This record gives sequence, structure tokens and C-alpha cells, in this order.
Amino acid sequence: MAMTSKATWIWYPGDYEIWLGNKMNNRRTERGAFFPPFWKTDSHYVTVEFSTVVELAEAEEIYIAAEGIFNLKLDGKLQFGMPEKFLLPAGKHNLNIKVWNQATPPALYVEGKTVKTDSSWRVTFEDKEWIDESGKASDTSATIYQQAGAWNFGREERPSAYKLCREELPAVAVKEVEGGKLYDFGRETFGYLILEGVEGNGEVAVYYGESPEEACDKAYCETLDRIRFEAATITDLATGATVCRTERYVFDNSKALRYVYVECEGAVPAKVSLAYEYAPVVYRGSFRSSDEELNRIWEIGAYTMHLTTREFFIDGIKRDRWVWSGDAVQSYLMNYYLFFDSECVKRTTWLLRGKDPVTAHTNTIMDYTFYWFIGIYDYYMYTGDKAFVKQIYPRMQTMMAYVLGRTNSRGMVEGMTGDWVFVDWADGYLDKKGELAIEQVLLCKSLETMALCAALAEVEEDVPTYEKLAAELRAKLMPTFWSEAKAAMVHNCVEGKQSEAVTRYANMFATFFGYLTPQQQQQIKDSVLLNDEILKITTPYMRFYELEALCVLGEQEAVMGEMKDYWGGMLREGATSFWEKYNPTESGTQHLAMYGRPYGKSLCHAWGASPIYLLGRYYLGVKPTEAGYAAYEVRPTLGGLAWMEGTIPTPQGEIRVKMDAHTVSVFATEGRGTLYHPTTGEPLAIECGKELTIHY
Amino acid sequence: MAMTSKATWIWYPGDYEIWLGNKMNNRRTERGAFFPPFWKTDSHYVTVEFSTVVELAEAEEIYIAAEGIFNLKLDGKLQFGMPEKFLLPAGKHNLNIKVWNQATPPALYVEGKTVKTDSSWRVTFEDKEWIDESGKASDTSATIYQQAGAWNFGREERPSAYKLCREELPAVAVKEVEGGKLYDFGRETFGYLILEGVEGNGEVAVYYGESPEEACDKAYCETLDRIRFEAATITDLATGATVCRTERYVFDNSKALRYVYVECEGAVPAKVSLAYEYAPVVYRGSFRSSDEELNRIWEIGAYTMHLTTREFFIDGIKRDRWVWSGDAVQSYLMNYYLFFDSECVKRTTWLLRGKDPVTAHTNTIMDYTFYWFIGIYDYYMYTGDKAFVKQIYPRMQTMMAYVLGRTNSRGMVEGMTGDWVFVDWADGYLDKKGELAIEQVLLCKSLETMALCAALAEVEEDVPTYEKLAAELRAKLMPTFWSEAKAAMVHNCVEGKQSEAVTRYANMFATFFGYLTPQQQQQIKDSVLLNDEILKITTPYMRFYELEALCVLGEQEAVMGEMKDYWGGMLREGATSFWEKYNPTESGTQHLAMYGRPYGKSLCHAWGASPIYLLGRYYLGVKPTEAGYAAYEVRPTLGGLAWMEGTIPTPQGEIRVKMDAHTVSVFATEGRGTLYHPTTGEPLAIECGKELTIHY
Repeated sequence: MAMTSKATWIWYPGDYEIWLGNKMNNRRTERGAFFPPFWKTDSHYVTVEFSTVVELAEAEEIYIAAEGIFNLKLDGKLQFGMPEKFLLPAGKHNLNIKVWNQATPPALYVEGKTVKTDSSWRVTFEDKEWIDESGKASDTSATIYQQAGAWNFGREERPSAYKLCREELPAVAVKEVEGGKLYDFGRETFGYLILEGVEGNGEVAVYYGESPEEACDKAYCETLDRIRFEAATITDLATGATVCRTERYVFDNSKALRYVYVECEGAVPAKVSLAYEYAPVVYRGSFRSSDEELNRIWEIGAYTMHLTTREFFIDGIKRDRWVWSGDAVQSYLMNYYLFFDSECVKRTTWLLRGKDPVTAHTNTIMDYTFYWFIGIYDYYMYTGDKAFVKQIYPRMQTMMAYVLGRTNSRGMVEGMTGDWVFVDWADGYLDKKGELAIEQVLLCKSLETMALCAALAEVEEDVPTYEKLAAELRAKLMPTFWSEAKAAMVHNCVEGKQSEAVTRYANMFATFFGYLTPQQQQQIKDSVLLNDEILKITTPYMRFYELEALCVLGEQEAVMGEMKDYWGGMLREGATSFWEKYNPTESGTQHLAMYGRPYGKSLCHAWGASPIYLLGRYYLGVKPTEAGYAAYEVRPTLGGLAWMEGTIPTPQGEIRVKMDAHTVSVFATEGRGTLYHPTTGEPLAIECGKELTIHY
Repeated sequence: MAMTSKATWIWYPGDYEIWLGNKMNNRRTERGAFFPPFWKTDSHYVTVEFSTVVELAEAEEIYIAAEGIFNLKLDGKLQFGMPEKFLLPAGKHNLNIKVWNQATPPALYVEGKTVKTDSSWRVTFEDKEWIDESGKASDTSATIYQQAGAWNFGREERPSAYKLCREELPAVAVKEVEGGKLYDFGRETFGYLILEGVEGNGEVAVYYGESPEEACDKAYCETLDRIRFEAATITDLATGATVCRTERYVFDNSKALRYVYVECEGAVPAKVSLAYEYAPVVYRGSFRSSDEELNRIWEIGAYTMHLTTREFFIDGIKRDRWVWSGDAVQSYLMNYYLFFDSECVKRTTWLLRGKDPVTAHTNTIMDYTFYWFIGIYDYYMYTGDKAFVKQIYPRMQTMMAYVLGRTNSRGMVEGMTGDWVFVDWADGYLDKKGELAIEQVLLCKSLETMALCAALAEVEEDVPTYEKLAAELRAKLMPTFWSEAKAAMVHNCVEGKQSEAVTRYANMFATFFGYLTPQQQQQIKDSVLLNDEILKITTPYMRFYELEALCVLGEQEAVMGEMKDYWGGMLREGATSFWEKYNPTESGTQHLAMYGRPYGKSLCHAWGASPIYLLGRYYLGVKPTEAGYAAYEVRPTLGGLAWMEGTIPTPQGEIRVKMDAHTVSVFATEGRGTLYHPTTGEPLAIECGKELTIHY
């Protein structure tokens, strides 16, 4: 939150986030080629006006800094130039500052004894303030103002100069391989390669690998660099950028790697190391249990999350390094049980949405649009940040207008040309035609989210509209997709006719969205979720929801087995971070291939880290029941463990849970908690700051 | 047109224009303060993809330059880095180049023996080309491509570096005034002040004036500069920009001026001159007659147009230096009879429209939105450039959707909060409430324009939609606004009731739009246009249309008198360019004041130059009757002159007309012309390249 009493840099909400996101998304490369996203890349408003009303007991000098060309109006009167210092007279005054910047978002920092920029300032991209022939200013009451966007940038921290942290990492092993050297950094990592003490002139080629096979495969590794040392200069052969030769050369773009294969032609470095780059997040959540393999799964999950939590929550660190909505919504949930980095959730949400007009689904993917909506209400529930919902609600409206403009005569969505109906990677086994049950389930939840957020944004007239649309669609879901014969929701309907296919997707979402009757829930548990005949899920992405559905149905013991099999399986394959996809039936280098490329798969993918979320929410059993943990519940379940303990971060504090076969104890620093007795289900009030221990 | 066989820089259509326009609009200053527009400032798409299909008999090396980071795909395969040279193999190939640039528009230049960037290349801001799990690319048939935007930039001419021409001008007179020196540059001009041979240290203050009174009024002149010379540096005190001290200092921002008052405090220049800045336009139109005052009016009009024809057609050179739609649409018409600079019309049209979503009327002014539509069909008629209509038509659709979204239950527009209903400067005498007749007339013409442009853009389904809307509104115009008692259209209707006021505006537009019956036309000529009781127009802006209406009604002799009185009146007041407003009843420094400021008025305003248009179109009598002068008519009228001669530019040539009391001769280099006999009205075919002379 930016609601501090300190001055901070401000901007138009979402604009800095979109700009920073473009920088991040556009750092993707593929074998030395620049690889930007294929959806619309938005940009900031280049001219914005910041304003506030001050009431001063005495005159006050303010310091003003802006990213961009600016002007300053005091009570409607333009002042000379771009003053760094300005004396505000005592009394009540209107202060308006307009900033123009094409290249980076217009941003403003004002600091006086009492006057300070923060999110209480107003901002608009068109003030519509004209003057008539007599010099009288127009009525600007129809101008739309937003509360300014902010983060935590202090006086000397220009937003456009923001960078993540760096730390130097040595290679842990080196060996000669054919004509070059293979460096091993010990585990999956990320950063900028450093070459030191280069002697001689010539080209140095660097091949990166998440596996040794990839690094050594010069023709097929996914990322590489080529630079040339020449007398006094070093040239990046991909970008053409040339710098003066120095003792220590740090590559310009970051890469994901565990291994680096370096081939030199004349110029030979004495030392190869890495500037490891990371977000300075705090591990506020924790988990330990009697099962060492599970503990290791949690740790590798946390590390996977750390690597993929950067300026934004990205998908994977090697490829695409982009922000994808389906991936992000899972990162948000894991984040609430690990870092509780609210700012990163907000940034990611802004970036994913971009600007109006909406010309495509989020990331072009229909289902990803729906996850975008759902993530916003999740965010509100975990953080209680109503101001953000209010800020972003106008963009929710236009996004939903786009969706509703693409519904068919039955009010359902079907993939149209240009829409990517993704659902999951399933080797071509998924029918994407007609009305997919999962898409309608997600649309229904999105409409419910709109109604909830309309109320939070205080746009009262929208509430009944979306409630009605949600209710109408929900009333159609089971009549359309439920098959008594199959005791499940079918995968899709084509031209009003149910298909024969049953898949897990709609059934698992309908379970935890509460769209199924208790009887239907029990039916699909056997007919779908625990039924090996139904197409198996091979991505951690959809396993996330599959296992969540089973947990909701009380199957924590079964899920524990699945976690140990599946994530434990990756560990047994040598994973040091979790993967984009894992099919236990594959072996060796089969695990590296995807997208028709031998190393196409990402071995560090955010959606691989779901045990972080499952363990916090369904084993430690903590979730908010009122926004921002004003109230919460703890329903701990050992799921086969002898004991477990862990910490769940909350907006201003934490909740600690400890459980073994006979005892549960809970300690919390904020909120009204309820512990449900593990055997009787009796609700027990948790007093803030006081440990509650029960024996059962 | 960019349809040349030479390679040229290309971009997303409209994007370069919007970016360049922001630079221009944001050069406005007021007494040393940065003064950007108060409407939404749009920006370019930061990532765009250019593509073409080549078919090569033999392999061909291409040279590639981009403004931005780029990649290159040949037949779907990404190539390494950002190659400056690339060998295209023989055969048929898809070439795709993606460019990213936040600060300036992504632009591309490719040149090979046969492969060259030009407007035949396709461009999109979202290709929506994703790959599935197997590596197969998606169907991009729903992706919206545009033909690339282009102008005339050659290989070494980066679009972002574009600058107008400069030429050094000396002051023609200098005199000591109080503590400083007043320089006179002889006539209204524009550019960057130059100080040479500055001795000593200290501040130099520069006060600009279109009049000597303004330049010498330090407290109230509209523009000024303050710089400080200090040992080795020169600092601009408004922007804080510091440069190394040199013998010759050129100010960073341009100003309009005839006079400059310079006050020095320690640092004294040996010489003060001006880097006159101008657009390299060609005076393709000409006019001479037996009346020397009229000739001078034409010359000063042409110079006024030259000063205000810059990167875009701006309003006035002192203030605002912005692009305003109402001003621009008149500049377009004058331009067709003077420079025939089609590119400047297109640039101005793009800039005025900006990007979606539409959040306000053009320049926030309702009437200016309508002029924007009307100007596009005018452009087509004069130039025949259908490709441009096709390119901009999608933005016409969304602009009209905005307008239609703000109509009342009678399908008419009324000013809503945030809408500026301008019409004209009339010292507060105009009622802006309810349905203004002029706004409905302009809306009706805009709807007709939409139908015509829909057909040109080949969006057939839109044609009947807009035709129906236009017909419905047109059918309501006279029943709503015509008053038999007043023999005129009344000014407005409030809550369905005609007001008592009659103004000239709607009546004159309805005349040349052909919305009046011949009988009504004759009625309003006496009851309104030639009636001194009706509120007089005091801006050249609306005099443009007033006199046009009279010309359409055959009143060239009366209009000649008006031109000599009104524009001749400004000349007699010492004008060296035409003004924003001229009220013959005022005197002395009253002529300088406006907007409640003593020098608020602009003494060089594009809309001051209308005789350029009137003389070409209604005296020489030339206008296209088929797009791009494929066919045209010549209806010359002396209007009281003994003789006249002139040249009218056409897309590829010109039409020359010469007339005296007994003879008319016409010579044209293109098009099918018809000369109408001055007395019999008989149509006579004009043969291309052959002078047609008649005696009457």
C-alpha cells in the first residue's frame, strides 16, 4: 500500500506497471532473436495531470521532481519554468502539475513539510479544462480523475530506473567439453553472465542450458549469446551494441540457466560467473513436516516461486519470461501463502489488462480472460485492498463488455477465429469446438466476480446487471453439461448437443466454485477425479486445480500421495525447480522436449509450485473468510503426516499453525480467527496474540 | 503518396503522425511555462509487425534499418540478432519484421534490389500468432492488418529525426528602449532566436511580441525566455537545460514574433538574429488581379498559410500552436488552392483523431468532431486518395459511435458536461443550450460523409446504416429549426421549442450543404446573410463560411467588397499576417487583446487566410467534380475585378485560369474539365494540355 506519510513517486495507475511490463516481456530472446509478445502491447498516457488541494497553516517550500517535462499551476495560474523548489503560500490552494513523457511514464515527486505526493493525489489524462474568450476556465466536473498510482519509490529512486537486486554467483563446477567449457551453477538460476580477464581478440559464444544436454547442444539450445572482443571494444553480435573493453564484462540481457557452455575463438576469459538477479521478497510463509520429501517439495516450490516472482509474476524464467494470466492467477494464490507481495499482484493484474480498447482476450486466451477477473476478487479477499478494486474496476467493465460481445445466442462463449481456447496442454487430445463446459464455468464465476467488484467499487447500478447475467448462466450450466449417464459434466456441447467426452476440467472447477450439489460432488469424485480412465493431466498447471478439488472434497490423504508421486517424481529426476510439464511415463531427455523442440520445455515454471498453496490452504488449512483476514478460518488436516507446522502471512502479520496426531495450536497477530476442531468440527475463537492449543 | 518504386521508411499508419504531433503541440509555452493540450494525448503502438511476401527470381541481399529493437522471421523462422544485411533466397518467401520502441514510433527501412519497404507492406499491432504444444502456429486469419504508413523518408532520414527547414534572418531595425533593446524583424515570423558574441556573465531576458507593445510589456507579453550565461555554461532558466558556452547560442524552443525585446544583466550579445523555421512547401497556386489591394490580401493570406503550415496545420504561431480541427479543416481547403500538400492534410487528420477509445470530442469541441469527418471527404474529392479513406475509416467508425452514443431521444446532439460547444468566438452572445441548429446541420453532413466513406472503404454494410441516419436527421432539420415568421433557421431549440434567436451559422452551412430549397436560400440571403441586424461575425473563421455561402448564392461582388473591407482593414492596421479575430469597430491596442489578456490574440492565425480559398474556388471558380480532379469545373466570375489570373494545383498538375471583361482562357494539364460560359452558362469541354479561350 502506498498510504504512508512519506512522499513517494506517483503516476497514472497502471501506466508504470504496463511500461515496466513491456520492458520485462520484451527481454525474451530465442536463440539470439528478440521475441516480443504477439498480443497488443499497450503504453502509458504520455501527458497526465496530477493535482491536490493543500491547506497550510504557514507557507511551505516544496521540492518538485518529475520524470518528464512539467508545468505547475497554483490556483489556476501557470508558474514560470519547471521549478525544483516552490514556495506555497499559507492557506487553501489548488496545486496542479502536468507532466509529459513519451519514453517512460510521466511521474511526479513532491516533498514539503506537510505536502507530499502519495496515492491521495488525483490524476487524469485529460482535464478538459479550456478557457473561453474572456479567459474563464471551463467546468471540469465531467473529467474523470483516478487516485494516483504509487509504490515505494523514495526521492532519489526514479521509477524508470527501477532494477531488481543482483548478487554474484560463482560456478560450482567446470569441465572441458569438446572445444569449450561447461560451467555448472549448481541449480536452476537466473541472471547476467560475467566474463572476467578476457585475453585476446575474437568471438565468444555462450550456450545456456537448464540441463547439460541443452547447454552443450549448440544447434538446439533455446538461448545463446555471441559477443566479439576486438582490441578496445566488445560488441554484442545480436544487438550490435558496442561498449568499451573492460576487465569485467556483464552481458546485457539476463538468462535462465543451470549450465553454460562457453566456446572461445581467440578471446578467452579467465573467470566465468553470474550476476544472479532476484526480487527482494521476504519468505513470510513457511512449512515443515514429518515428511522430508514433502519439506523438500515445499522448498523447491518456494525457490521456483522466487525465481518466477520478478518485476511481475512470470510463467517460466527461460522461456517465455512473459506474464500469462492463467499462470499468474496461480502465482497470486501461492504468493498469499509465501511472500504476500501485494504490489506484485497488482502490477501483474494491471499489465495483463493493458489499456482500452480491448482487441483480444487476455494473452489472446479465452480462459485467461476469466482467470484475470477471478484473480481480482481473490486479491481483495486476501488483502482487503478495496482501493485497488475501485481503481481497476473501469477496466473490468470494458473487459467484460468485450467478453459479452462475443457470446452466442445461448449467452455462452465459443472460440472464434483469433481466440485461443487453451484449457491445458494435452497433446492435442482436447476438443476445442463449440461450448466448452470449463469456459462457461469460468465465465459464470467471472460474472459473479463482476457483481462483487461492482459493489466494492461502489458502482451500484452494475451489481444487479451482473448478478442477473451470472444467475442466468449458472441456471443453464447443469441442464447443458451434466450427464446423468456419465455422472459428470461433459467436456463440451456442439450445436446444442452434448459430446461424449468427459474431462476433468469443468468438473474440478465446478467443485470448488460450489456449482455442484453435494450429491454431484460425490459422483464426480468417483466418476472423474479418481477415475484413471479419464484423460490424465500432465501439467502442474491443471494438477493445481485437480488437487484443489480433491482437497475440497476432503481427500487430503489421496492428494498427499499425488504430491509425493508427482512433485517427488520431478525431484527424483534431479529437478532443482519445478517444471512446466511432467509426464511420469516419459524418461531421460524426453523430459526436456516440448513445442516440437528438444529443449522447448521450461524447467522452472511458476505453475509448478502449487504445493505451496495446497499445503497452506488445505493442510495448515488457513483461509480468509472476510477480506484481508479481518476474519479467517483454520481447518488443519494432517493428510497422513505425523506432524506439520507452518506460518501463513496476513496483510500486517501472520498466523502460525502447528499440528500433530493429538494437538493443534494456533497463534495469530491479527484478525478474528476460528479454529475448527479436527474431530468434532466445533468452532473455537482464536484470540489475537495468544496461542490457542487444543488436544484432540 | 508513398506508392513509389523507392524504398521508404514505414510505420503503423497514424502512429508517426500522432507522435510528431505530440512533439509539436507540446512546444507551446506561456510566459516560460510548458503548456500541453487539455485533451487526451495518444501515443504510438510500441510493438508492431511489418510483413510482406517476396517472390525472387534470384537471391537478393537486403539492407535493414529500424527505429527500435527488431527481429526478423523468414518463412516463420526467427533469425539471429538484428542483422543489418540479410540474404533472401530465391523463390517465394514470407518476411516478417517486428519492431519495439517505447520512445518513438517503431519504423522500418528495408532496401534490396527489388525488395523495398513502402506502403504495400502490411502492418499490425497484434499478430495473434501463437504456437501450440507441437510447435504449430495458429491461424491468424482474424488478425487485422493495415497497409503501412509512409511519407518520403529515405535511407538516412530517420523519421524520428525529422525537422523543418531553417534559414537565418537578421533584424531589420534595433532601438534602445528603457534598459534594453527592441529588435524588429520586419514582419510576423517564426523561429529560434540566436545570440552571438555574448560578453560577460549574467541573465539575458527575452520578451517576444507580435507587436512592439507586446514585446516591451515584460509583465504581460505572451512568451518569453530567460537564460543565464555563467563562465563556461549557458542555462535555460525555464527548463534547467545547461549547455557548454559557445560563441553562438540558439534557443531551444521556437517562438512567433515580429519584435524581440532583450534585457541583459551582465551578459551582452553582440548580435541578435533569428533562425527562421519553415515548412518546405511549394506555392503551387497563384492569384493576380487588377486590384492591388486584393493581390496584397492574397499574398498576406499565402504567407499566413505558410507560417501556420508546419509539421501540421496549426491554428496560430504564437498561441496555441496546436492542431485544432475547426481551424484545420479551413487550412485544408486553402491548402488545396495554394500548396496542395496532401501529406500535411493526412498527418493533421491522423493527429486530430488520435487513438481509440474515444473519450471526448475532437479537441473536446463538438463542432470540431464534425469538421473532422467533413474534412476527410473534402480530402478525397481534391486528391482522389481512396487508400487514405480506407486506412482511416475504422477510426471514423469509432468516432461516429461516440457521437451517436451522445444523441438525445430525437437523434440530435446537445452539449453535455465536458463537451465544448464552440461554434465561434462571439463575446458571450451565443446561446449554447439545447439543440443548436448548426450542430445538427454539421452532424447531418457528417453522417452523409460516413455513408460516402463507408462505400470508399468498401465497408458495404455500413452504407445503408449511415444513409438512413443521415436521411432521418435531415428530414427533421427544417421542421425543427425553420421559422416561417423569421424566414430563417433559428439558432437553437430548447426542450423541443424554437428559440427567438436567429444567427448566421446554421443558415450559411445549410446553404452550401444544399439543405435549403432555392426559395429558402433566397429568403435567408436577405433575412440573415445580408441583414445587418443579425449578430455580426468578428472572426475570419466564421467569415470564411459566411462569405462562402454568399458566393454560392452568386454574390461575388458583395463578397469582394467584404474582403476588401475586412482583410483590407487588417492590412490598413499594419498586419503582416492575418489575425485570429478582427473587429473593425475596435482601435489601437484593442486589436491585440483577447481571452482577458492584453496580448492574448494571435496575429497570425490560419483561419485568417480564407481569401486564398474564396478566390480560387469562387472567382477563378475551379473545383473538382470527380475525386482527384478526374473531372472538374471552371466557373470564373470577376466579381467586380477588371481582370484576374491564377493557377490552381491539382494532384499531378495544374489548371490556369485568366479572365477579363471579354475573354476567359483555361489551360489544364490533367483531368476532364468543363468551362461554364460566363453569360450563357453553356458547358465547354477543356482539352488537356491545350488552352481553351472564349470571348464573351
